[in-house]
Amino acid sequence: MHEFTTRRRIEFADTDMGGIVHFSRYFVFMETAEHRFLDALGTSVCAEHEGRALGWPRVAAACEYRSPARFGDELEIRVRVRRKGEKSMTYEFSFRCGEREVASGSMTAVCCRMLPGGEMRSIPIPRAIAARLDEPPP
Amino acid sequence: MHEFTTRRRIEFADTDMGGIVHFSRYFVFMETAEHRFLDALGTSVCAEHEGRALGWPRVAAACEYRSPARFGDELEIRVRVRRKGEKSMTYEFSFRCGEREVASGSMTAVCCRMLPGGEMRSIPIPRAIAARLDEPPP
Amino acid sequence: MHEFTTRRRIEFADTDMGGIVHFSRYFVFMETAEHRFLDALGTSVCAEHEGRALGWPRVAAACEYRSPARFGDELEIRVRVRRKGEKSMTYEFSFRCGEREVASGSMTAVCCRMLPGGEMRSIPIPRAIAARLDEPPP
Amino acid sequence: MHEFTTRRRIEFADTDMGGIVHFSRYFVFMETAEHRFLDALGTSVCAEHEGRALGWPRVAAACEYRSPARFGDELEIRVRVRRKGEKSMTYEFSFRCGEREVASGSMTAVCCRMLPGGEMRSIPIPRAIAARLDEPPP
Repeated sequence: MHEFTTRRRIEFADTDMGGIVHFSRYFVFMETAEHRFLDALGTSVCAEHEGRALGWPRVAAACEYRSPARFGDELEIRVRVRRKGEKSMTYEFSFRCGEREVASGSMTAVCCRMLPGGEMRSIPIPRAIAARLDEPPP
Repeated sequence: MHEFTTRRRIEFADTDMGGIVHFSRYFVFMETAEHRFLDALGTSVCAEHEGRALGWPRVAAACEYRSPARFGDELEIRVRVRRKGEKSMTYEFSFRCGEREVASGSMTAVCCRMLPGGEMRSIPIPRAIAARLDEPPP
Repeated sequence: MHEFTTRRRIEFADTDMGGIVHFSRYFVFMETAEHRFLDALGTSVCAEHEGRALGWPRVAAACEYRSPARFGDELEIRVRVRRKGEKSMTYEFSFRCGEREVASGSMTAVCCRMLPGGEMRSIPIPRAIAARLDEPPP
Repeated sequence: MHEFTTRRRIEFADTDMGGIVHFSRYFVFMETAEHRFLDALGTSVCAEHEGRALGWPRVAAACEYRSPARFGDELEIRVRVRRKGEKSMTYEFSFRCGEREVASGSMTAVCCRMLPGGEMRSIPIPRAIAARLDEPPP
Protein backbone atom coordinates (compact mmCIF):
# COMPACT_ATOMS: atom_id res chain seq x y z
CA MET A 1 0.00 0.00 0.00
CA HIS A 2 1.32 3.46 -0.70
CA GLU A 3 -1.47 5.83 0.26
CA PHE A 4 -3.90 6.29 3.11
CA THR A 5 -6.42 8.93 4.15
CA THR A 6 -7.62 9.79 7.63
CA ARG A 7 -9.59 12.59 9.30
CA ARG A 8 -9.19 14.65 12.43
CA ARG A 9 -11.23 17.37 14.12
CA ILE A 10 -9.40 20.45 15.41
CA GLU A 11 -9.56 20.73 19.20
CA PHE A 12 -9.51 23.89 21.31
CA ALA A 13 -6.06 23.03 22.69
CA ASP A 14 -4.71 22.86 19.11
CA THR A 15 -5.26 26.61 18.71
CA ASP A 16 -3.19 29.62 19.76
CA MET A 17 -3.96 33.26 20.51
CA GLY A 18 -3.87 34.00 16.77
CA GLY A 19 -7.17 32.10 16.61
CA ILE A 20 -5.73 29.36 14.39
CA VAL A 21 -4.11 25.96 14.81
CA HIS A 22 -0.58 26.36 16.17
CA PHE A 23 1.90 25.44 13.44
CA SER A 24 3.67 22.86 15.62
CA ARG A 25 0.49 20.78 15.88
CA TYR A 26 0.65 19.78 12.21
CA PHE A 27 3.68 17.66 13.08
CA VAL A 28 1.64 15.78 15.66
CA PHE A 29 -1.12 15.37 13.08
CA MET A 30 1.39 13.95 10.57
CA GLU A 31 2.78 11.50 13.08
CA THR A 32 -0.64 10.22 14.11
CA ALA A 33 -1.66 9.87 10.45
CA GLU A 34 1.50 7.81 9.87
CA HIS A 35 0.60 5.58 12.83
CA ARG A 36 -2.95 5.04 11.59
CA PHE A 37 -1.48 4.14 8.20
CA LEU A 38 0.77 1.53 9.83
CA ASP A 39 -2.22 0.21 11.79
CA ALA A 40 -4.23 -0.06 8.58
CA LEU A 41 -1.35 -2.08 7.11
CA GLY A 42 -1.57 -4.52 10.02
CA THR A 43 1.66 -3.41 11.67
CA SER A 44 2.47 -0.72 14.26
CA VAL A 45 5.03 1.91 14.99
CA CYS A 46 5.75 -0.06 18.18
CA ALA A 47 6.24 -3.45 16.53
CA GLU A 48 8.87 -5.78 17.97
CA HIS A 49 11.59 -7.42 15.93
CA GLU A 50 13.62 -10.38 17.15
CA GLY A 51 12.51 -9.72 20.70
CA ARG A 52 13.46 -6.05 20.83
CA ALA A 53 11.23 -3.01 20.50
CA LEU A 54 11.51 -1.02 17.30
CA GLY A 55 11.33 2.74 17.22
CA TRP A 56 11.13 5.23 14.36
CA PRO A 57 12.87 8.44 15.46
CA ARG A 58 12.35 11.26 13.04
CA VAL A 59 15.39 12.67 11.22
CA ALA A 60 13.58 15.32 9.19
CA ALA A 61 10.19 17.03 9.13
CA ALA A 62 8.84 19.96 7.16
CA CYS A 63 5.53 21.68 6.58
CA GLU A 64 4.19 24.44 4.35
CA TYR A 65 1.09 26.28 5.45
CA ARG A 66 -1.34 27.51 2.79
CA SER A 67 -4.42 28.58 4.78
CA PRO A 68 -5.26 28.45 8.47
CA ALA A 69 -7.28 25.73 10.17
CA ARG A 70 -9.52 26.72 13.04
CA PHE A 71 -11.31 25.17 16.02
CA GLY A 72 -13.91 22.64 14.89
CA ASP A 73 -12.55 22.24 11.35
CA GLU A 74 -12.39 18.67 10.18
CA LEU A 75 -9.16 18.04 8.31
CA GLU A 76 -8.69 15.35 5.73
CA ILE A 77 -5.11 14.12 5.94
CA ARG A 78 -3.62 12.08 3.12
CA VAL A 79 -0.40 10.13 3.74
CA ARG A 80 1.71 8.85 0.86
CA VAL A 81 4.97 6.94 0.78
CA ARG A 82 7.44 9.20 -0.98
CA ARG A 83 10.50 7.01 -0.59
CA LYS A 84 11.15 3.60 0.92
CA GLY A 85 14.81 3.33 1.86
CA GLU A 86 16.68 0.38 3.29
CA LYS A 87 16.53 1.81 6.81
CA SER A 88 14.17 4.77 6.53
CA MET A 89 10.76 5.82 5.26
CA THR A 90 9.85 9.23 3.89
CA TYR A 91 6.17 10.11 3.88
CA GLU A 92 4.41 13.11 2.43
CA PHE A 93 1.19 14.55 3.76
CA SER A 94 -1.53 16.87 2.53
CA PHE A 95 -4.10 18.57 4.73
CA ARG A 96 -7.43 19.74 3.33
CA CYS A 97 -10.54 21.24 4.89
CA GLY A 98 -13.30 20.47 2.40
CA GLU A 99 -12.09 21.91 -0.91
CA ARG A 100 -9.58 24.20 0.74
CA GLU A 101 -5.88 23.27 0.79
CA VAL A 102 -4.54 23.84 4.30
CA ALA A 103 -0.99 22.51 4.39
CA SER A 104 1.41 19.93 3.03
CA GLY A 105 4.38 18.33 4.67
CA SER A 106 6.87 15.52 4.81
CA MET A 107 8.60 13.43 7.41
CA THR A 108 11.49 10.96 7.38
CA ALA A 109 11.76 8.32 10.08
CA VAL A 110 14.58 5.82 10.58
CA CYS A 111 13.94 2.26 11.71
CA CYS A 112 15.84 1.62 14.95
CA ARG A 113 16.25 -1.07 17.55
CA MET A 114 15.80 0.29 21.03
CA LEU A 115 18.76 -0.85 23.14
CA PRO A 116 18.90 -1.02 26.94
CA GLY A 117 19.70 2.36 28.45
CA GLY A 118 17.72 4.21 25.82
CA GLU A 119 20.22 3.96 22.95
CA MET A 120 18.82 3.50 19.45
CA ARG A 121 20.62 1.77 16.56
CA SER A 122 19.40 2.04 12.96
CA ILE A 123 18.62 -1.29 11.25
CA PRO A 124 17.19 -2.36 7.90
CA ILE A 125 13.39 -2.20 7.98
CA PRO A 126 12.25 -5.73 8.94
CA ARG A 127 10.88 -7.57 5.92
CA ALA A 128 7.44 -8.08 7.49
CA ILE A 129 7.00 -4.33 7.63
CA ALA A 130 8.83 -3.37 4.44
CA ALA A 131 6.68 -5.79 2.47
CA ARG A 132 3.58 -3.80 3.35
CA LEU A 133 4.92 -0.39 2.34
CA ASP A 134 5.35 0.52 -1.32
CA GLU A 135 6.59 3.51 -3.18
CA PRO A 136 3.84 4.74 -5.47
CA PRO A 137 4.15 3.66 -9.10
CA PRO A 138 6.15 6.18 -11.16
CA MET B 1 13.60 22.71 52.67
CA HIS B 2 9.87 23.18 52.28
CA GLU B 3 9.47 26.10 49.89
CA PHE B 4 10.92 27.24 46.60
CA THR B 5 10.16 29.99 44.09
CA THR B 6 10.83 30.01 40.37
CA ARG B 7 9.81 32.10 37.36
CA ARG B 8 8.61 31.37 33.86
CA ARG B 9 7.70 33.48 30.85
CA ILE B 10 4.51 32.64 28.95
CA GLU B 11 5.24 31.43 25.41
CA PHE B 12 3.05 31.80 22.34
CA ALA B 13 2.40 28.06 22.22
CA ASP B 14 1.04 28.21 25.81
CA THR B 15 -1.93 30.26 24.61
CA ASP B 16 -5.23 29.26 23.01
CA MET B 17 -7.73 31.03 20.77
CA GLY B 18 -9.28 32.65 23.86
CA GLY B 19 -6.09 34.76 23.96
CA ILE B 20 -5.00 33.35 27.32
CA VAL B 21 -2.84 30.51 28.62
CA HIS B 22 -4.57 27.18 28.08
CA PHE B 23 -5.64 25.81 31.45
CA SER B 24 -3.84 22.48 30.87
CA ARG B 25 -0.48 24.26 30.69
CA TYR B 26 -0.55 25.12 34.39
CA PHE B 27 -0.04 21.44 35.13
CA VAL B 28 3.13 21.45 33.06
CA PHE B 29 4.23 24.61 34.89
CA MET B 30 3.63 22.90 38.25
CA GLU B 31 5.59 19.83 37.25
CA THR B 32 8.55 21.83 36.02
CA ALA B 33 8.51 23.95 39.19
CA GLU B 34 8.59 20.71 41.23
CA HIS B 35 11.57 19.50 39.22
CA ARG B 36 13.47 22.76 39.70
CA PHE B 37 12.72 22.46 43.42
CA LEU B 38 14.21 18.95 43.48
CA ASP B 39 17.23 20.22 41.51
CA ALA B 40 17.69 23.02 44.03
CA LEU B 41 17.65 20.37 46.77
CA GLY B 42 20.48 18.53 45.04
CA THR B 43 18.37 15.60 43.90
CA SER B 44 16.33 14.97 40.74
CA VAL B 45 13.01 13.56 39.67
CA CYS B 46 15.05 10.99 37.73
CA ALA B 47 17.29 9.88 40.59
CA GLU B 48 18.31 6.24 40.79
CA HIS B 49 17.89 4.09 43.86
CA GLU B 50 19.68 0.76 44.36
CA GLY B 51 20.50 0.64 40.68
CA ARG B 52 16.98 1.19 39.38
CA ALA B 53 15.41 4.35 38.01
CA LEU B 54 12.86 6.08 40.19
CA GLY B 55 9.74 7.70 38.82
CA TRP B 56 7.10 9.91 40.38
CA PRO B 57 3.81 9.27 38.58
CA ARG B 58 1.11 11.71 39.57
CA VAL B 59 -1.96 10.38 41.37
CA ALA B 60 -3.79 13.67 41.77
CA ALA B 61 -3.60 17.20 40.39
CA ALA B 62 -5.86 20.20 40.73
CA CYS B 63 -5.84 23.88 39.83
CA GLU B 64 -8.01 26.91 40.48
CA TYR B 65 -7.79 29.82 38.07
CA ARG B 66 -8.26 33.34 39.43
CA SER B 67 -7.21 35.59 36.54
CA PRO B 68 -5.85 34.84 33.09
CA ALA B 69 -2.18 34.86 32.12
CA ARG B 70 -1.26 36.04 28.65
CA PHE B 71 1.61 35.83 26.18
CA GLY B 72 4.74 37.46 27.54
CA ASP B 73 3.60 37.51 31.17
CA GLU B 74 6.26 36.45 33.62
CA LEU B 75 4.79 34.20 36.28
CA GLU B 76 6.24 33.74 39.71
CA ILE B 77 5.57 30.19 40.82
CA ARG B 78 5.90 29.22 44.45
CA VAL B 79 6.13 25.52 45.39
CA ARG B 80 5.50 24.35 48.95
CA VAL B 81 5.51 20.90 50.49
CA ARG B 82 1.99 20.34 51.78
CA ARG B 83 2.45 16.78 52.96
CA LYS B 84 5.35 14.35 53.05
CA GLY B 85 4.01 10.80 53.16
CA GLU B 86 5.92 7.55 53.41
CA LYS B 87 5.61 6.91 49.68
CA SER B 88 4.20 10.14 48.28
CA MET B 89 4.68 13.89 48.23
CA THR B 90 1.93 16.49 47.96
CA TYR B 91 2.98 19.93 46.79
CA GLU B 92 0.98 23.12 46.55
CA PHE B 93 1.63 25.89 44.07
CA SER B 94 0.71 29.52 43.66
CA PHE B 95 1.04 31.51 40.46
CA ARG B 96 1.35 35.28 40.50
CA CYS B 97 1.97 37.88 37.82
CA GLY B 98 3.37 40.87 39.68
CA GLU B 99 0.81 41.65 42.39
CA ARG B 100 -1.96 39.79 40.63
CA GLU B 101 -2.96 36.30 41.79
CA VAL B 102 -3.27 34.06 38.74
CA ALA B 103 -3.87 30.52 39.97
CA SER B 104 -3.18 28.04 42.73
CA GLY B 105 -2.89 24.29 42.56
CA SER B 106 -1.71 21.06 44.08
CA MET B 107 -0.19 17.82 42.92
CA THR B 108 0.48 14.45 44.56
CA ALA B 109 3.18 12.18 43.20
CA VAL B 110 4.04 8.66 44.33
CA CYS B 111 7.61 7.41 44.53
CA CYS B 112 7.98 4.34 42.31
CA ARG B 113 10.65 1.97 41.09
CA MET B 114 10.53 1.57 37.35
CA LEU B 115 10.55 -2.17 36.57
CA PRO B 116 11.52 -3.77 33.27
CA GLY B 117 8.64 -3.75 30.82
CA GLY B 118 7.39 -0.38 32.01
CA GLU B 119 5.73 -1.49 35.25
CA MET B 120 5.98 0.84 38.25
CA ARG B 121 5.90 -0.22 41.90
CA SER B 122 5.45 2.25 44.75
CA ILE B 123 8.22 2.27 47.35
CA PRO B 124 9.05 4.34 50.43
CA ILE B 125 10.79 7.57 49.44
CA PRO B 126 14.54 6.82 49.64
CA ARG B 127 16.05 8.41 52.72
CA ALA B 128 18.52 10.52 50.73
CA ILE B 129 15.60 12.28 49.08
CA ALA B 130 13.17 12.30 51.99
CA ALA B 131 15.80 13.94 54.19
CA ARG B 132 15.81 16.98 51.92
CA LEU B 133 12.06 17.54 51.85
CA ASP B 134 10.25 18.93 54.87
CA GLU B 135 6.69 19.73 55.71
CA PRO B 136 6.46 23.38 56.66
CA PRO B 137 6.35 24.08 60.39
CA PRO B 138 2.77 24.13 61.70
CA MET C 1 -29.30 15.81 28.69
CA HIS C 2 -26.93 15.20 31.57
CA GLU C 3 -24.56 12.50 30.37
CA PHE C 4 -22.52 11.73 27.29
CA THR C 5 -19.86 9.20 26.34
CA THR C 6 -17.08 9.56 23.79
CA ARG C 7 -13.90 7.70 22.86
CA ARG C 8 -10.34 8.70 22.09
CA ARG C 9 -7.21 6.82 21.04
CA ILE C 10 -3.94 7.68 22.79
CA GLU C 11 -1.40 9.25 20.42
CA PHE C 12 2.37 9.05 20.60
CA ALA C 13 2.63 12.75 21.43
CA ASP C 14 0.34 12.21 24.45
CA THR C 15 3.05 10.13 26.14
CA ASP C 16 6.13 11.09 28.15
CA MET C 17 9.44 9.43 28.91
CA GLY C 18 7.76 7.44 31.70
CA GLY C 19 6.08 5.50 28.88
CA ILE C 20 2.59 6.64 29.89
CA VAL C 21 0.19 9.45 29.01
CA HIS C 22 1.40 12.74 30.49
CA PHE C 23 -0.93 13.75 33.30
CA SER C 24 -1.59 17.19 31.78
CA ARG C 25 -3.16 15.61 28.68
CA TYR C 26 -6.19 14.39 30.65
CA PHE C 27 -7.27 18.02 30.95
CA VAL C 28 -7.23 18.36 27.17
CA PHE C 29 -9.19 15.12 26.93
CA MET C 30 -11.79 16.48 29.39
CA GLU C 31 -12.17 19.72 27.48
CA THR C 32 -12.63 17.99 24.15
CA ALA C 33 -15.16 15.59 25.67
CA GLU C 34 -17.07 18.62 27.01
CA HIS C 35 -17.05 20.16 23.52
CA ARG C 36 -18.31 16.98 21.89
CA PHE C 37 -21.05 16.89 24.52
CA LEU C 38 -22.08 20.46 23.62
CA ASP C 39 -21.99 19.51 19.93
CA ALA C 40 -24.22 16.53 20.62
CA LEU C 41 -26.64 18.90 22.34
CA GLY C 42 -26.81 21.04 19.21
CA THR C 43 -24.83 23.95 20.65
CA SER C 44 -21.11 24.76 20.76
CA VAL C 45 -18.49 26.10 23.11
CA CYS C 46 -18.10 28.94 20.59
CA ALA C 47 -21.77 29.88 20.33
CA GLU C 48 -22.67 33.54 19.92
CA HIS C 49 -25.12 35.39 22.11
CA GLU C 50 -26.65 38.74 21.18
CA GLY C 51 -24.01 39.25 18.54
CA ARG C 52 -21.00 38.63 20.75
CA ALA C 53 -18.86 35.53 21.06
CA LEU C 54 -19.22 33.48 24.21
CA GLY C 55 -16.31 31.82 25.94
CA TRP C 56 -16.10 29.36 28.82
CA PRO C 57 -12.85 30.00 30.67
CA ARG C 58 -12.11 27.34 33.25
CA VAL C 59 -12.04 28.34 36.92
CA ALA C 60 -11.22 24.93 38.36
CA ALA C 61 -10.01 21.56 37.14
CA ALA C 62 -8.92 18.42 38.95
CA CYS C 63 -7.98 14.87 38.10
CA GLU C 64 -7.21 11.67 40.01
CA TYR C 65 -5.14 9.04 38.27
CA ARG C 66 -5.86 5.37 39.07
CA SER C 67 -3.88 3.46 36.43
CA PRO C 68 -1.74 4.60 33.51
CA ALA C 69 -2.92 4.85 29.91
CA ARG C 70 -0.42 4.04 27.18
CA PHE C 71 0.12 4.63 23.47
CA GLY C 72 -2.62 3.03 21.41
CA ASP C 73 -5.08 2.59 24.30
CA GLU C 74 -8.61 3.54 23.46
CA LEU C 75 -10.17 5.47 26.32
CA GLU C 76 -13.87 5.67 26.98
CA ILE C 77 -14.63 9.08 28.45
CA ARG C 78 -17.92 9.71 30.20
CA VAL C 79 -19.01 13.33 30.83
CA ARG C 80 -21.72 14.13 33.36
CA VAL C 81 -23.21 17.42 34.49
CA ARG C 82 -22.44 17.67 38.20
CA ARG C 83 -23.84 21.12 38.78
CA LYS C 84 -25.61 23.68 36.61
CA GLY C 85 -25.16 27.13 38.12
CA GLU C 86 -26.57 30.42 36.94
CA LYS C 87 -23.27 31.41 35.28
CA SER C 88 -21.18 28.25 35.43
CA MET C 89 -21.20 24.55 34.65
CA THR C 90 -19.36 21.85 36.57
CA TYR C 91 -18.78 18.60 34.75
CA GLU C 92 -17.33 15.36 36.01
CA PHE C 93 -15.46 12.87 33.88
CA SER C 94 -14.44 9.25 34.10
CA PHE C 95 -11.83 7.59 31.94
CA ARG C 96 -11.82 3.83 31.36
CA CYS C 97 -9.78 1.52 29.16
CA GLY C 98 -11.97 -1.53 28.70
CA GLU C 99 -12.83 -2.71 32.22
CA ARG C 100 -9.95 -0.83 33.79
CA GLU C 101 -10.55 2.47 35.58
CA VAL C 102 -7.93 4.98 34.42
CA ALA C 103 -8.83 8.35 35.90
CA SER C 104 -11.64 10.60 37.02
CA GLY C 105 -11.84 14.35 37.03
CA SER C 106 -13.92 17.48 37.15
CA MET C 107 -13.93 20.89 35.55
CA THR C 108 -15.84 24.12 36.18
CA ALA C 109 -16.26 26.64 33.38
CA VAL C 110 -17.86 30.09 33.60
CA CYS C 111 -19.99 31.50 30.81
CA CYS C 112 -18.46 34.76 29.60
CA ARG C 113 -18.99 37.37 26.92
CA MET C 114 -15.80 38.12 25.06
CA LEU C 115 -15.31 41.88 25.00
CA PRO C 116 -13.14 43.84 22.57
CA GLY C 117 -9.52 43.88 23.70
CA GLY C 118 -9.71 40.36 25.07
CA GLU C 119 -11.61 41.10 28.28
CA MET C 120 -14.14 38.52 29.45
CA ARG C 121 -17.23 39.23 31.56
CA SER C 122 -19.26 36.49 33.22
CA ILE C 123 -22.95 36.36 32.27
CA PRO C 124 -25.88 34.07 33.02
CA ILE C 125 -25.81 31.04 30.73
CA PRO C 126 -28.03 31.96 27.76
CA ARG C 127 -31.37 30.17 27.97
CA ALA C 128 -30.91 28.39 24.63
CA ILE C 129 -27.86 26.64 26.04
CA ALA C 130 -29.01 26.23 29.65
CA ALA C 131 -32.20 24.53 28.44
CA ARG C 132 -30.15 21.72 26.95
CA LEU C 133 -28.04 20.97 30.02
CA ASP C 134 -29.56 19.20 33.02
CA GLU C 135 -28.29 18.16 36.38
CA PRO C 136 -28.76 14.43 36.75
CA PRO C 137 -31.82 13.37 38.75
CA PRO C 138 -30.99 13.02 42.45
CA MET D 1 21.17 42.58 14.20
CA HIS D 2 21.23 39.26 12.40
CA GLU D 3 22.06 36.69 15.04
CA PHE D 4 21.00 35.84 18.57
CA THR D 5 21.62 32.99 21.01
CA THR D 6 19.39 31.75 23.79
CA ARG D 7 19.18 28.72 26.05
CA ARG D 8 16.43 26.39 27.20
CA ARG D 9 16.24 23.44 29.57
CA ILE D 10 14.32 20.34 28.43
CA GLU D 11 11.22 19.72 30.55
CA PHE D 12 9.58 16.39 31.35
CA ALA D 13 6.53 17.28 29.25
CA ASP D 14 8.80 17.85 26.22
CA THR D 15 9.63 14.12 26.13
CA ASP D 16 7.78 11.16 24.67
CA MET D 17 7.75 7.43 25.39
CA GLY D 18 10.87 7.03 23.25
CA GLY D 19 12.68 8.78 26.12
CA ILE D 20 13.66 11.77 23.98
CA VAL D 21 12.25 15.19 23.15
CA HIS D 22 9.24 14.87 20.86
CA PHE D 23 10.17 16.15 17.42
CA SER D 24 7.25 18.60 17.32
CA ARG D 25 8.62 20.47 20.33
CA TYR D 26 11.57 21.84 18.34
CA PHE D 27 9.12 24.02 16.44
CA VAL D 28 7.94 25.55 19.70
CA PHE D 29 11.58 26.05 20.69
CA MET D 30 12.27 27.83 17.38
CA GLU D 31 9.28 30.10 17.78
CA THR D 32 10.19 31.09 21.31
CA ALA D 33 13.79 31.73 20.26
CA GLU D 34 12.48 34.00 17.49
CA HIS D 35 10.37 35.90 20.02
CA ARG D 36 13.29 36.36 22.41
CA PHE D 37 15.30 37.64 19.45
CA LEU D 38 12.60 40.21 18.66
CA ASP D 39 12.49 41.17 22.35
CA ALA D 40 16.25 41.64 22.34
CA LEU D 41 15.82 43.94 19.33
CA GLY D 42 13.37 46.08 21.28
CA THR D 43 10.29 44.98 19.34
CA SER D 44 7.83 42.10 19.81
CA VAL D 45 5.97 39.53 17.78
CA CYS D 46 2.81 41.23 19.06
CA ALA D 47 3.73 44.80 18.09
CA GLU D 48 1.00 47.10 16.86
CA HIS D 49 1.16 49.07 13.63
CA GLU D 50 -1.14 51.99 12.84
CA GLY D 51 -3.48 50.95 15.61
CA ARG D 52 -3.89 47.35 14.55
CA ALA D 53 -2.25 44.24 15.97
CA LEU D 54 0.38 42.58 13.84
CA GLY D 55 0.74 38.83 13.59
CA TRP D 56 3.38 36.62 12.02
CA PRO D 57 1.70 33.43 10.85
CA ARG D 58 4.16 30.80 9.71
CA VAL D 59 4.13 29.73 6.07
CA ALA D 60 6.93 27.18 6.26
CA ALA D 61 8.89 25.34 8.91
CA ALA D 62 11.43 22.52 8.74
CA CYS D 63 13.77 20.70 11.06
CA GLU D 64 16.52 18.10 10.75
CA TYR D 65 17.34 16.01 13.79
CA ARG D 66 20.94 14.91 14.29
CA SER D 67 21.00 13.52 17.82
CA PRO D 68 18.33 13.25 20.51
CA ALA D 69 17.85 15.70 23.37
CA ARG D 70 16.69 14.33 26.69
CA PHE D 71 15.07 15.50 29.92
CA GLY D 72 17.29 17.99 31.74
CA ASP D 73 19.52 18.78 28.75
CA GLU D 74 20.24 22.46 28.32
CA LEU D 75 20.04 23.41 24.67
CA GLU D 76 21.82 26.35 23.16
CA ILE D 77 19.66 27.74 20.37
CA ARG D 78 21.13 30.09 17.80
CA VAL D 79 18.77 32.14 15.61
CA ARG D 80 19.99 33.78 12.40
CA VAL D 81 18.22 35.87 9.81
CA ARG D 82 18.47 33.90 6.59
CA ARG D 83 16.38 36.19 4.42
CA LYS D 84 14.59 39.49 4.98
CA GLY D 85 11.81 39.85 2.42
CA GLU D 86 9.45 42.75 1.90
CA LYS D 87 6.65 40.97 3.78
CA SER D 88 8.32 37.96 5.32
CA MET D 89 11.27 36.84 7.42
CA THR D 90 13.09 33.54 7.16
CA TYR D 91 15.13 32.49 10.16
CA GLU D 92 17.44 29.56 10.60
CA PHE D 93 18.12 27.83 13.88
CA SER D 94 20.73 25.50 15.28
CA PHE D 95 20.37 23.48 18.47
CA ARG D 96 23.39 22.27 20.40
CA CYS D 97 23.83 20.48 23.71
CA GLY D 98 27.35 21.33 24.78
CA GLU D 99 29.56 20.27 21.87
CA ARG D 100 26.95 17.97 20.41
CA GLU D 101 24.88 19.08 17.42
CA VAL D 102 21.23 18.26 18.12
CA ALA D 103 19.17 19.74 15.31
CA SER D 104 18.91 22.55 12.80
CA GLY D 105 15.84 24.16 11.33
CA SER D 106 14.24 27.05 9.56
CA MET D 107 11.01 28.99 9.69
CA THR D 108 9.37 31.59 7.45
CA ALA D 109 6.80 33.97 8.91
CA VAL D 110 4.72 36.55 7.04
CA CYS D 111 3.95 39.95 8.51
CA CYS D 112 0.17 40.38 8.70
CA ARG D 113 -2.39 42.83 9.99
CA MET D 114 -5.01 41.11 12.10
CA LEU D 115 -8.43 42.21 10.84
CA PRO D 116 -11.69 42.04 12.79
CA GLY D 117 -13.23 38.58 12.58
CA GLY D 118 -9.86 36.88 12.66
CA GLU D 119 -8.81 37.53 9.06
CA MET D 120 -5.13 38.24 8.41
CA ARG D 121 -3.74 40.31 5.55
CA SER D 122 -0.05 40.33 4.62
CA ILE D 123 1.62 43.76 4.67
CA PRO D 124 5.16 45.07 4.18
CA ILE D 125 7.15 44.72 7.40
CA PRO D 126 6.77 48.07 9.20
CA ARG D 127 9.95 50.10 8.92
CA ALA D 128 10.46 50.31 12.69
CA ILE D 129 10.77 46.53 12.79
CA ALA D 130 12.51 45.98 9.46
CA ALA D 131 15.20 48.45 10.43
CA ARG D 132 16.24 46.21 13.32
CA LEU D 133 16.55 43.00 11.33
CA ASP D 134 19.45 42.45 8.98
CA GLU D 135 20.50 39.73 6.65
CA PRO D 136 23.97 38.57 7.64
CA PRO D 137 26.80 39.97 5.52
CA PRO D 138 27.54 37.74 2.52
